[in-house]
Amino acid sequence: MRPALNDNFSRLVPSYLFSEIAARQKVFSAAHPEVKIIRMGIGDVTRPLAPAVIEAMHRAVDDCARPETFHGYGPEHGYAFLRERIAQQDYAGLGIGPDEIFISDGAKSDLGNLVDLFDDRNVIGIPTPVYPVYVDTNLMRGRTIRYIDCTEADGFTGQIPDFPVDILYLCYPNNPTGAAISREKLSAWVDYAHANGSVIIYDSAYEAFIREPSLPHSIFEIEGAKECAIEVRSYSKTAGFTGIRCGYTVIPKELGPLGAMWERRQGCKFNGASYISQRGAAAIYTPEGRRQVRADIDAYLENAALIRSGLEAIGLHATGGENAPYIWARTPEGMDSWKFFDLCLEKAGVVITPGCGFGRGGEGYFRITAFNSRDNVCEAMQRLKAL
Amino acid sequence: MRPALNDNFSRLVPSYLFSEIAARQKVFSAAHPEVKIIRMGIGDVTRPLAPAVIEAMHRAVDDCARPETFHGYGPEHGYAFLRERIAQQDYAGLGIGPDEIFISDGAKSDLGNLVDLFDDRNVIGIPTPVYPVYVDTNLMRGRTIRYIDCTEADGFTGQIPDFPVDILYLCYPNNPTGAAISREKLSAWVDYAHANGSVIIYDSAYEAFIREPSLPHSIFEIEGAKECAIEVRSYSKTAGFTGIRCGYTVIPKELGPLGAMWERRQGCKFNGASYISQRGAAAIYTPEGRRQVRADIDAYLENAALIRSGLEAIGLHATGGENAPYIWARTPEGMDSWKFFDLCLEKAGVVITPGCGFGRGGEGYFRITAFNSRDNVCEAMQRLKAL
Repeated sequence: MRPALNDNFSRLVPSYLFSEIAARQKVFSAAHPEVKIIRMGIGDVTRPLAPAVIEAMHRAVDDCARPETFHGYGPEHGYAFLRERIAQQDYAGLGIGPDEIFISDGAKSDLGNLVDLFDDRNVIGIPTPVYPVYVDTNLMRGRTIRYIDCTEADGFTGQIPDFPVDILYLCYPNNPTGAAISREKLSAWVDYAHANGSVIIYDSAYEAFIREPSLPHSIFEIEGAKECAIEVRSYSKTAGFTGIRCGYTVIPKELGPLGAMWERRQGCKFNGASYISQRGAAAIYTPEGRRQVRADIDAYLENAALIRSGLEAIGLHATGGENAPYIWARTPEGMDSWKFFDLCLEKAGVVITPGCGFGRGGEGYFRITAFNSRDNVCEAMQRLKAL
Repeated sequence: MRPALNDNFSRLVPSYLFSEIAARQKVFSAAHPEVKIIRMGIGDVTRPLAPAVIEAMHRAVDDCARPETFHGYGPEHGYAFLRERIAQQDYAGLGIGPDEIFISDGAKSDLGNLVDLFDDRNVIGIPTPVYPVYVDTNLMRGRTIRYIDCTEADGFTGQIPDFPVDILYLCYPNNPTGAAISREKLSAWVDYAHANGSVIIYDSAYEAFIREPSLPHSIFEIEGAKECAIEVRSYSKTAGFTGIRCGYTVIPKELGPLGAMWERRQGCKFNGASYISQRGAAAIYTPEGRRQVRADIDAYLENAALIRSGLEAIGLHATGGENAPYIWARTPEGMDSWKFFDLCLEKAGVVITPGCGFGRGGEGYFRITAFNSRDNVCEAMQRLKAL
């Protein structure tokens, strides 16, 4: 074969984390078929979709059955019915217009595809421990990454570095640590971006889990952010859309050519999100829709509180889980992540996610997610307590 | 702003075609509100979805309403229920396995994203006139493109070039010319790829329109193609999924690392196609589904036949429309494409697509599509005849 391959792929660390978890779980299950395993490591929602969303999607399916209401290609950047609701409700009072909002099939696609807009010589700043997608999508383009350590001392919001980066990824509420960021700290990051001319890519996929009124849901609540930030959001965790696929990216006009470049990129390599998914997403902006998706998130947050207090009750140091679906905890006595994983699996039949799977700064920690039934959460906590 | 932008975007020709068409149409409508304009240029389907698809999507929506049947993140490369049907039915007897099939949200995404797998120094071969996406997605990566002229003399299937290219794009049945390719000619392209070590990216989005039994539906019907070709398909035109979003790409094992690289790319930048869309797509493989989508395509093909004979009856030289939804015709007396566009709009209230919008070799031609109601097709032909 003559075409040269993209040899940046060889720089990617194979993603063994979830396959290794599955493999160890399988071995254990085969040896102990009598143990009911509780999976507390999964990052996928478990509650069914809100009735308002279901109803809207049924109507959308019916629209496609009649010539007079059939919807073919939609606007590449999303239907106005959705963009306008996002502008009015998600960004109320923040001065973001529908033409600065670009609908897609999800945050992961947008986070991956935004790299297309920038030159590959840019230096990328990534706080760690971290959701591996920011790292991998930039390594695939051969870019240099500078890691920014996040520790308990800074509440996992990172120390402002003394070196410049061109593009900075921030994710709050954070995956995997469940940390939220204060308005002051986020302002400090925006100031850093202004001082260095950096662009911030702000992943706020978990903003719907924020319950503390003082915390910012959007980076655009911070003065000056429109001049330096792109925000990516998803309905996956907000409304359980992990299988439905819909999200959006906000590129403020203040960022100059970037909005038009994204339009061009998407117009050329994307054909819009599903009409049915967009109708479903629009339904969460109705009064019933809002109430229903909030109730689902409340239920997950109650799980999170039970997990965090359960872990604390057995003497583990836990953070997160208050404005996020993730609880991040230290392994007991500095045990290594995989060793603790094995212990939980073998002695309690509980699957956790080893922190080392999230890169530098993750070793010695583990992640538990609140995406589970109440019964499973309570039983898992009982078992860990007994252990 | 400090990050250097991807300056390859400046090499892209602004895509004025459809916006220019819309602008001219708007000016005309404002001046002549009494004329009912018939749009014969649109590349979007118009018939509603097949009842089997609608039913399957309603069931899929209901699945998402109950915890026991809820579907969150699906397998990144698609559900087995769909991959297996594709392998069994679309590739019956061709030895393509479900693990060589990767489901996505559509052919345009896959065609755009496949560029990620290759080094940017590769030379790209693109037959022209052409669907602009192959060109733009490669220009965005700064690649060198060598055009391969397709003319009436070669039935718009191109002359085998006397220079090598690393990656070759082929699309049959073709957009915009509606040309189909014979088994012999496609074999000649596969031979060219073997002789030069090229990889062919074969876009067979319109294969469902093939009615002539001797024509190949897939490049994998050609001996030796598995060693040199990737095939991209879509449900957009096969089953009217332009608003539903589902397609797939076949990367045969014989292509070595490319399948694993695509898995890695998609695992990192994509989260799977909508569960509802995949259930809808699976329904077209049932006996009723097959019958229903075939009937829809037959209706479009009857439109195509009426258009082609209508154009010929008024003395225009027309090709395509027999195994494709597109008719490609010479403008009368070598008139330039936009001039003929204006004439059709102003004197007949009919909108066509000027051939020059499809790049080199398109000037002096126009494209008409069969995606319309029978009544509109008949009236448009009457009006052009009168003109």
